[in-house]
Amino acid sequence: MENWRIIETKFPKENLNHNETVFTIGNGYMSCRGSFEEGYPGEVATTFVHGVFNDVPTYHTELVNFPNIFSMRILMEDEVFDLSTGKIFNYFRKLELQNGLLTREITWQSPGGREATFLFERFMNMDDIHHAALRFSIRSHNFNGRLSLHFPISGIVSNERYRHWDYIAQGREGEGGCFLNLQTIDTQIRASIYEQIVFSDAGLKQGQYWDTKWTPCLVYQYPVKSGDALSGTKHSVIYTGREVESPEHAARITCCKAAEKGFDEHLKRSEKIWNDLWHRSNVTIEGDDLADRSLRYNLFQVLIAAPRHEDQVSIGAKTLSGYGYRGHVFWDTEIFLLPFFIFTQPAIAKNLLMYRYHTLPGARKKARQNGYKGAMYAWESAATGEEVTPTWVVGPEAELIKIWCGVIEQHITADVVYAVRQYWQVTGDDDFMRDFGAEIVLSAAIFYASRLEWDVEDDQYHMRDVIGPDEYHEHVDDNAMTNLMAQWVLDFGKTVGIWLRDNFPEHYQILLKNLNLNQEDLFSWSEMARQIAIIVREDGIIEQFGGYFDLIFQDQQTLEPRSESLQSLFGIEGVQAYQFIKQPDVVMALFLLKERFATEQIIENLNYYTQRTDLTQGSSLGPSIQALMLACFGDVEEAKALLIKTLLTDLDNNRGNTPDGIHAASAGAVWQVVLLGFLGFDVINGQPVLEPHLPKGWERVKLNILWRGKNLVFDIF
Amino acid sequence: MENWRIIETKFPKENLNHNETVFTIGNGYMSCRGSFEEGYPGEVATTFVHGVFNDVPTYHTELVNFPNIFSMRILMEDEVFDLSTGKIFNYFRKLELQNGLLTREITWQSPGGREATFLFERFMNMDDIHHAALRFSIRSHNFNGRLSLHFPISGIVSNERYRHWDYIAQGREGEGGCFLNLQTIDTQIRASIYEQIVFSDAGLKQGQYWDTKWTPCLVYQYPVKSGDALSGTKHSVIYTGREVESPEHAARITCCKAAEKGFDEHLKRSEKIWNDLWHRSNVTIEGDDLADRSLRYNLFQVLIAAPRHEDQVSIGAKTLSGYGYRGHVFWDTEIFLLPFFIFTQPAIAKNLLMYRYHTLPGARKKARQNGYKGAMYAWESAATGEEVTPTWVVGPEAELIKIWCGVIEQHITADVVYAVRQYWQVTGDDDFMRDFGAEIVLSAAIFYASRLEWDVEDDQYHMRDVIGPDEYHEHVDDNAMTNLMAQWVLDFGKTVGIWLRDNFPEHYQILLKNLNLNQEDLFSWSEMARQIAIIVREDGIIEQFGGYFDLIFQDQQTLEPRSESLQSLFGIEGVQAYQFIKQPDVVMALFLLKERFATEQIIENLNYYTQRTDLTQGSSLGPSIQALMLACFGDVEEAKALLIKTLLTDLDNNRGNTPDGIHAASAGAVWQVVLLGFLGFDVINGQPVLEPHLPKGWERVKLNILWRGKNLVFDIF
Repeated sequence: MENWRIIETKFPKENLNHNETVFTIGNGYMSCRGSFEEGYPGEVATTFVHGVFNDVPTYHTELVNFPNIFSMRILMEDEVFDLSTGKIFNYFRKLELQNGLLTREITWQSPGGREATFLFERFMNMDDIHHAALRFSIRSHNFNGRLSLHFPISGIVSNERYRHWDYIAQGREGEGGCFLNLQTIDTQIRASIYEQIVFSDAGLKQGQYWDTKWTPCLVYQYPVKSGDALSGTKHSVIYTGREVESPEHAARITCCKAAEKGFDEHLKRSEKIWNDLWHRSNVTIEGDDLADRSLRYNLFQVLIAAPRHEDQVSIGAKTLSGYGYRGHVFWDTEIFLLPFFIFTQPAIAKNLLMYRYHTLPGARKKARQNGYKGAMYAWESAATGEEVTPTWVVGPEAELIKIWCGVIEQHITADVVYAVRQYWQVTGDDDFMRDFGAEIVLSAAIFYASRLEWDVEDDQYHMRDVIGPDEYHEHVDDNAMTNLMAQWVLDFGKTVGIWLRDNFPEHYQILLKNLNLNQEDLFSWSEMARQIAIIVREDGIIEQFGGYFDLIFQDQQTLEPRSESLQSLFGIEGVQAYQFIKQPDVVMALFLLKERFATEQIIENLNYYTQRTDLTQGSSLGPSIQALMLACFGDVEEAKALLIKTLLTDLDNNRGNTPDGIHAASAGAVWQVVLLGFLGFDVINGQPVLEPHLPKGWERVKLNILWRGKNLVFDIF
Repeated sequence: MENWRIIETKFPKENLNHNETVFTIGNGYMSCRGSFEEGYPGEVATTFVHGVFNDVPTYHTELVNFPNIFSMRILMEDEVFDLSTGKIFNYFRKLELQNGLLTREITWQSPGGREATFLFERFMNMDDIHHAALRFSIRSHNFNGRLSLHFPISGIVSNERYRHWDYIAQGREGEGGCFLNLQTIDTQIRASIYEQIVFSDAGLKQGQYWDTKWTPCLVYQYPVKSGDALSGTKHSVIYTGREVESPEHAARITCCKAAEKGFDEHLKRSEKIWNDLWHRSNVTIEGDDLADRSLRYNLFQVLIAAPRHEDQVSIGAKTLSGYGYRGHVFWDTEIFLLPFFIFTQPAIAKNLLMYRYHTLPGARKKARQNGYKGAMYAWESAATGEEVTPTWVVGPEAELIKIWCGVIEQHITADVVYAVRQYWQVTGDDDFMRDFGAEIVLSAAIFYASRLEWDVEDDQYHMRDVIGPDEYHEHVDDNAMTNLMAQWVLDFGKTVGIWLRDNFPEHYQILLKNLNLNQEDLFSWSEMARQIAIIVREDGIIEQFGGYFDLIFQDQQTLEPRSESLQSLFGIEGVQAYQFIKQPDVVMALFLLKERFATEQIIENLNYYTQRTDLTQGSSLGPSIQALMLACFGDVEEAKALLIKTLLTDLDNNRGNTPDGIHAASAGAVWQVVLLGFLGFDVINGQPVLEPHLPKGWERVKLNILWRGKNLVFDIF
């Protein structure tokens, strides 16, 4: 079971924030970073709940930090339990991937010489997603005196330094409970947080309640003798006005009920759900423990961020595990993360796609604001689907840097359509396509049709002034990936239109009417698609954008060793003169639209662009797709090396920004690297096929997918 | 005594934030807005301490909000004292200007029918500036049950939504005390806040202490019967690391001692200081109660913001009474506010000028950064004197608006010099001039000498691309006020240089060496001054800047009625085409440099520019100077009307932004309007002279000034 565990054996004084991210737990509704019960200066403790956003300067809107539900203060007499003082004799923290149980055990001696062993066990309940439990156990070694335990619900919590909550009410609930009701200041989402403390020894009940405004607190003080052990469970419950009419009522009822059952009983129920999740999602790689364990860890982080309970939220670029990107949703979800769910948990995949359906109004608004028709999805999307990419950010020299992605990185709309197609293809869920998917697809096609610019000079459609996945080059014309994806969307739009007309003529008529679309326009899309400018050299190399071939080529090797990105090395303006790219761009298009290209051309382009891609310091999205393409079309060992690096992105903090949260895209994409890369999974003539090429040392790879409702087990050895 | 009181007779539900500003109290070290003990949603409660700044986005640095030291929560059984619920039978709040005592008395019935009378009395001790006291008294009418009183020190306080504090420690102090130690996150200023509760009935002592982290809280619960009264005093003490090595120690000692004396004893001692302050500063206007009372109120607000205890801080544009301008110091201090102190409290005036001396390094840094020599004072100044004007602010449509004042509004340096001269002239404090003033003056002259641009075409010095006091016009050349003031600084610089050489030759040599200035350069300044471009029309009208006469003239009357400024009406760009000005600019120069102009020319310019000045919706700095100039050179009744309007700026919130804090400039300038305007005070041949012209109804005006250490009483009737 060693490959099902993440272990920490030392108090992480130096890498506190990194390990807080690593030990994030959650249940798809809420999540908590692995901050410590007792709290430390410099900690970044977050409790996030899906969909609870509030306004913030620069970033428009951000996920709101809740009171830390695992917060707990321990005093032996007047000495606070604090590992930055005194002596640590033993330290052990363990995350069980099997059931999401996070355990910590420490033997500690206070500066005053009081010694005890402290055990904390926490999990966020998969069976009741509003519930989380913390079991604590304190065993005195030599301490005789008053042991005090404080359980505050601190409502004056902030996102970094910025506060989001208004106070509503607080109070005591029964003997061992208290609550705090809050409301987000701008979006006015009510939230109710309840806690109940239950001690193992039922005789111990005389708790106090401190009614300090904003921070209700339950307090227990017991005389302890050396050898004594004291243990109990803190049950916490969160409800918000997003789910129920009265979060206060729901939280109260749920918390009271939760306290009736013990920690173990809750854990057992939660584990049952986990078993099912892993049954569908687990991947075994025999012969490579590092890959096996770290892949499982990445999938764990993806699973705890996945909304099983609702379809109005999606997974942000940093899951629910940190402040990075403020909880905003990017193409990371549809292109990197979603395939894992489409193939293993289609119900979750559907929830995530429904988020894009529900946010169509935001996408339509963005199209209108930019002078286009149809639906133009936000580069960064949050509660409403309106564009929430910052317009400007402050650079290291306090200068303002204009962020263009929100306006001109326009492949995102095609990426959403691509995910709809993949979901439809893999699940065969015609109901979804009829009722929701078709509207997304046609709205996107309408957008691209209005976006493309006809040029009478060369009789072609162009998309000028865009940014492709390679964000080193801004304001380019005819980015190949964007144009190829737009072309594909127009073709697929027509396909879906015809399918709907033939199978559900009434739905077809209503949809056309709602979208203000006439049939001739729809039928003209494939013709339009053929006229989109795609620049291909004689040797088959696709030009990343108009003029790319004329840029300076420089061998990256000449710049090694380096610890910064090529953009940072050459400057935002400077790097534009070079062929260096931030991440696969043409290669990304070839990956997504593989069926449209000959293998030879794919290989040639892969070779050409690989040496130009900043795989070490560019986008964290790059290495996974690169690994996948290499596994199919290049050097399998090189592919494996890139995969391993990607798998350790967060465990090893090898990009330096894991403190901001889990890299959701790479955490999800590694699964694709295995299935679509090393196992060579493909769909040919509507049928799934495998063409495995395993790297050295991988003795056996086992995973399963759901193909049109059927469980397919792939066991390669 | 009615003219010594500000009264509120109704719970200010609708104008909560306005009245919070109005009822601000302080003692020159710290201040508290008139927020209520029990707290309300939407309140803007601040406790500011002079000089405690911390970093913040956009505004660079801001005064840090401390825990609200007057915070107190009252419960009758489980019903919280909250005037937004239940019934108010009687409500009365009163600010005594005589001694700064703020009293509130309410009879209130809870929703559950419990009725009591609540009396709160608070003041900030002028005798011990680290101490503030709150006396509470609760008399039950019909309530029988448990009365609970909570006294939290809430460390999780923020500036609006932004947090500035790190937690250091907290704890109990004796039976009735507790403390909280904090530290500002970036500037690392330690602060210690202590409170002690003393009940009138010494038998009542069994308080609890709630040790909730960040919010230590003292709690008292007493059984009460109808007719019972309970009263006590909360003593609060604040020390910071700016004043003492150990603020924790100093606060503890001071608070323990403070609690030994009663509320009345402290108040008596504080009142003694107040008596002295008023003895020096009071103005009596018989025959006009409104003017009499509101002038006194304005002076009260200025006095409570004035640092008597140190010389490293100054008074911000909103005193210590709100978030407006983040505590930053502008020319408002030297030109509008300072004369009041120079003439009545020269020790305070000296403190304020010493702030400019201590911030010379910041001013030198700004000069260097802008490519000039000498000292270029910050348009907005805070702890260090470095420029802290925001570079950009976000406009109403989320657009970015570039703020130019920090770079090109360059009269500020001359304004500081002007204040130095006035202080020297009125006090005759040669020591100050020798040791500090001369360095400011010469450094400023060096700056302007390096700033002026010689033009070979017209053989004149120019100052191109500046903003004058009229901020409606940005990027103008040869703003008359700026050029005239620079001219004056160069002349005065030479004068001071010669004075220093003749009287303190050693100081002179050292200073020249320190400033890297040679005597020839110093002697050339007056010649340079004569060559500065000042554009004067044949009829004597001074052109506000090059090209001003060519702009469009429009009668403001044609735009009435209006409720927005002319800038907002025509747009930031649009208004530049017009002759509309935001506030007196040429007229300001004529006011400051009166001795350099013939009365006729002053009158002509006053007439010309008055009709072009946006006096109603332009800068709040405008009406006072306009009133002053009208009182001397125009219609006295018109002057009085403008004065009254200025006097009511904050009492009536007639500019709509009093919630952001007291308008320090107008609060100080009204005193100048009386002395320099209606009393016609002037210095001629080094001698003070009066030429009173009182408006109708003003039967008698009485005030006193200190002229070179002698008390002069002016009693005009």
